[in-house]
Amino acid sequence: MTHHEFILAGTGGQGLILAGILLAEAAMLDGRNVVQTQSYGIASRGGLSLAEVIIDDDEIIFQQVSKPDCVLALSEEAATKYEALTAKGVTLLYDSALVKVRSGANCHGRGFTRTAEDMGRPDSANIVALGALAAGTGTVSLRSLQRAIEARFRPPARDLNLRLLAMGRDLAASV
Amino acid sequence: MTHHEFILAGTGGQGLILAGILLAEAAMLDGRNVVQTQSYGIASRGGLSLAEVIIDDDEIIFQQVSKPDCVLALSEEAATKYEALTAKGVTLLYDSALVKVRSGANCHGRGFTRTAEDMGRPDSANIVALGALAAGTGTVSLRSLQRAIEARFRPPARDLNLRLLAMGRDLAASV
Repeated sequence: MTHHEFILAGTGGQGLILAGILLAEAAMLDGRNVVQTQSYGIASRGGLSLAEVIIDDDEIIFQQVSKPDCVLALSEEAATKYEALTAKGVTLLYDSALVKVRSGANCHGRGFTRTAEDMGRPDSANIVALGALAAGTGTVSLRSLQRAIEARFRPPARDLNLRLLAMGRDLAASV
Repeated sequence: MTHHEFILAGTGGQGLILAGILLAEAAMLDGRNVVQTQSYGIASRGGLSLAEVIIDDDEIIFQQVSKPDCVLALSEEAATKYEALTAKGVTLLYDSALVKVRSGANCHGRGFTRTAEDMGRPDSANIVALGALAAGTGTVSLRSLQRAIEARFRPPARDLNLRLLAMGRDLAASV
């Protein structure tokens, strides 16, 4: 499988667009082709903040997600919107503090927000989730995500985000 | 016309993705729906850095640009790629320091890089170009672009970027 699709969904201000860009940059550093899309307004289907990332070894002609490998949901609304896809094999990775428990086979709740809060950075659950998404799906290398973060942040945010990323990776162990 | 499409094209490191995001955020502040896409790698069609922005009053279902209102070209390669569209009424707005003169009716060269250099910020031609694009096409309000910049940058970068935006607006007078 050289083609991968991801949906990152939640509410405004959670940093999902930044997470999508970091995921895209990491995939590019891995030598892949990437299309990254974000929707704002009604286009984001009911107030969701929505970032989509398509990764392929070949050129990407069709720029819309058709069947995601994994949906990251950082709000109840986002989980409700996409949970039906889990019956088709799509992985739903959700924040256990922000989303009610989903017990389906492909549903995985993790404490992204709680981890970020423990580090004193409640607004950085996006970085924790990114680490879990990358490690859980194995699509993008952690090394490239680290490089993308290193290129974007200055100390001390850089080191903190690298730690949050690593904590997300550890959370993903069983996804 | 409630539907607008823009292509921002150049090379990596010119800040075109950031420009696309600021344009998208401004359109959202204007109350529009927006889809913003960036392509990396081969997907970006020959090494171009490419950001696309679609703005509509209605929901945006099809997320790919079909006929742009305006193409911003910050490299010769980008101008070459898109100049044929000018025969179909598409505006080509290009950096006169980075792109050879195009004399077609819909081709407009402006000194984005030179203006940014004059301000001691050669890497900020993207913000100058954004001001020109918004003012020249009238699609997105300058006020909303200012708000998007104010939300993203802290002083002193904030004030400098607001000045660069205004200088871009002035450059656009005859576009």
